[in-house]
Amino acid sequence: MLKLYYSPGACSLAPHIALEEAGAPYEVERVDLRAGAQRQGAYLAVNPKGRVPALLTDRGILTEAPVILGYIAQTHPDAHLAPIGDPFAFADMQAFNLFLATTLHVAFAHIFRPERYAEGEAAATAMRAKAPESLAAAFALIEERFADGRPFVQGQSYTVADPYLFTFSRWLAARRLDGQPLGRLADYPHVAAHHARVGERPAVVKVRAAEAAG
Amino acid sequence: MLKLYYSPGACSLAPHIALEEAGAPYEVERVDLRAGAQRQGAYLAVNPKGRVPALLTDRGILTEAPVILGYIAQTHPDAHLAPIGDPFAFADMQAFNLFLATTLHVAFAHIFRPERYAEGEAAATAMRAKAPESLAAAFALIEERFADGRPFVQGQSYTVADPYLFTFSRWLAARRLDGQPLGRLADYPHVAAHHARVGERPAVVKVRAAEAAG
Repeated sequence: MLKLYYSPGACSLAPHIALEEAGAPYEVERVDLRAGAQRQGAYLAVNPKGRVPALLTDRGILTEAPVILGYIAQTHPDAHLAPIGDPFAFADMQAFNLFLATTLHVAFAHIFRPERYAEGEAAATAMRAKAPESLAAAFALIEERFADGRPFVQGQSYTVADPYLFTFSRWLAARRLDGQPLGRLADYPHVAAHHARVGERPAVVKVRAAEAAG
Repeated sequence: MLKLYYSPGACSLAPHIALEEAGAPYEVERVDLRAGAQRQGAYLAVNPKGRVPALLTDRGILTEAPVILGYIAQTHPDAHLAPIGDPFAFADMQAFNLFLATTLHVAFAHIFRPERYAEGEAAATAMRAKAPESLAAAFALIEERFADGRPFVQGQSYTVADPYLFTFSRWLAARRLDGQPLGRLADYPHVAAHHARVGERPAVVKVRAAEAAG
């Protein structure tokens, strides 16, 4: 059985939702990031990089959210979570997911985990001051993508890119630092509508409740 | 025909090599990053994110190095540049590539392009001071991967993960800031041997010469 290592609300939320949407039998194991469990031996044996998500399969461990998302979609074709028979369309979806991983997630990480990138409060403050600008540029690009009226990231069909975007639009809406808003989801009406649309899906409701309870 | 937008020595080197290894007909267009061409209208029409690489296909543009690498491998199966019939093995290769994109490339970017992440010289200095530690941790993990004697990232077979690692091990070896070494390739003997092994391949020699001449 597939087993997902996750932390509530972390980017592991996206593969957690994808597993639920896929209708796959799966189990989850919570990694307590606040207690630093991701840097302790038991978890480093699962993922030496010390990050969530990680997915245990019968062939071994997979890491990196976009990879796990693509793998869940490819191995559950009946769930239609990606255009898996079309290399260009699949790559186009993954290009969106990579943008979230390399740009959007990285911008958020400068706010939540500045110690990854520089020592000291002054540098942390400077990185946190810059990040909203990077987030705004990234969300503006995403907003443009929806200008054609598409309901989902890749068009008319829901794919694993949708719960991944949902995860980060949730971060934009929910997180605040020192009273300063990171951004306002309402500034991106298409993204906000997407967030609401995805948030209503039964699989998303179920997984969010499970993570909140877990 | 495929067309790759690249800048000499940038991470676009990896898909450039992959196109050559694939034996695909392709052309290239140089984007002058120093002159800021990536932020000008002509290139933003190709890639609104203002980054290289971008690959123009008969279906449209693809971006993000790991995505382009996977796409080249999948659409040129005779070149055997990835385990394309095996979703787990393909995902495992892409997990490695994503690690390079989200961790290693991001660490280098804090040295080469600190202005992406914070304003001001003090913050830039702090980020540049931290990056070698992040690079060392990442290269140590990669070194461990080769401890079983494998010649290539994924084992006995050369894949698109190899030119991608080659690109970053070249950065580690070549780049210096204020006389401070970023790292020494010799500290990672397996990675150094991999670098030499990949660097000798005819496709790699040809592409490096083309980028140097271009």
